[in-house]
Amino acid sequence: MTVESGSLNLHTRYEGEILDITEKIQAIVAKGNIRNGAAFLFVPGSTAALTTLEYEPGLLVDLPSMLETTALLGPDLFVPIREKSLVLGTWQQIVFIELDVRSRDRTLVVQLIGE
Amino acid sequence: MTVESGSLNLHTRYEGEILDITEKIQAIVAKGNIRNGAAFLFVPGSTAALTTLEYEPGLLVDLPSMLETTALLGPDLFVPIREKSLVLGTWQQIVFIELDVRSRDRTLVVQLIGE
Amino acid sequence: MTVESGSLNLHTRYEGEILDITEKIQAIVAKGNIRNGAAFLFVPGSTAALTTLEYEPGLLVDLPSMLETTALLGPDLFVPIREKSLVLGTWQQIVFIELDVRSRDRTLVVQLIGE
Repeated sequence: MTVESGSLNLHTRYEGEILDITEKIQAIVAKGNIRNGAAFLFVPGSTAALTTLEYEPGLLVDLPSMLETTALLGPDLFVPIREKSLVLGTWQQIVFIELDVRSRDRTLVVQLIGE
Repeated sequence: MTVESGSLNLHTRYEGEILDITEKIQAIVAKGNIRNGAAFLFVPGSTAALTTLEYEPGLLVDLPSMLETTALLGPDLFVPIREKSLVLGTWQQIVFIELDVRSRDRTLVVQLIGE
Repeated sequence: MTVESGSLNLHTRYEGEILDITEKIQAIVAKGNIRNGAAFLFVPGSTAALTTLEYEPGLLVDLPSMLETTALLGPDLFVPIREKSLVLGTWQQIVFIELDVRSRDRTLVVQLIGE
């Protein structure tokens, strides 16, 4: 068992912007030595959120109303790792959502825990 | 320290269906070798959610309004393990909530991390 | 890699009360032996929540409307640990939110996992 600490720099441009960070997180997992475990993602700062969603145009249009109803959001998110791959649904993406009213530079914390 | 990877198959019938999966997760914990740590649960696919709630008829009636207000939901959930038991409140249940508009077969990822 | 199990007793007085528990969690981390990993926090009982927010008067006034819109809430929360410190934004606080209609004594589960 081990912990691998990493980070991911992001630049956001506007409130409500949604960045698909799935491939970037998968690249961090691929470069690491954790075969089975989980990737623990955390946003320092309270005006942003992490979640997963189906990243397609139609859904994004509806995100404001989704936020008002189901609100699948939080500052922390983990995704399982199996055989050095993130376990996600076919169209499921890990997304970063900017909730601040202005452009921001963000550094996401990525901790891989497993063996 | 070790990681134990498992899964749980679920069948849902309609949007908004709530399945109490507490006993099934506890059975996975009981069969495993992790005495202290946590059970990390994740739903591959974005149209379902995991949370805990007090699983009683009155509350379920109010779930739609609860979803609109407090929204204690997410695709990921962890629950602590102590002495091979999930640490939950007396009436607290782990629930899977179907948010898709149709019946689905679901496979939940269950990772136990601890020692 | 190891797991350290702890707890934190809290007393709440009213529905909607927000307790800043950042320093108490940091004290648990400082007393422990985990240098790098994460602190996994969980509320047994379904009528309370954990999240992070910028703990300043203006924001607290707006919390009810925030709960209705972004809902950054859940019964579980993890925060990364690096060099025995919680990784948080400058003004980011870990908060416990009482959602029960009455005063409660609460015991929060705190598991540190790392090395």
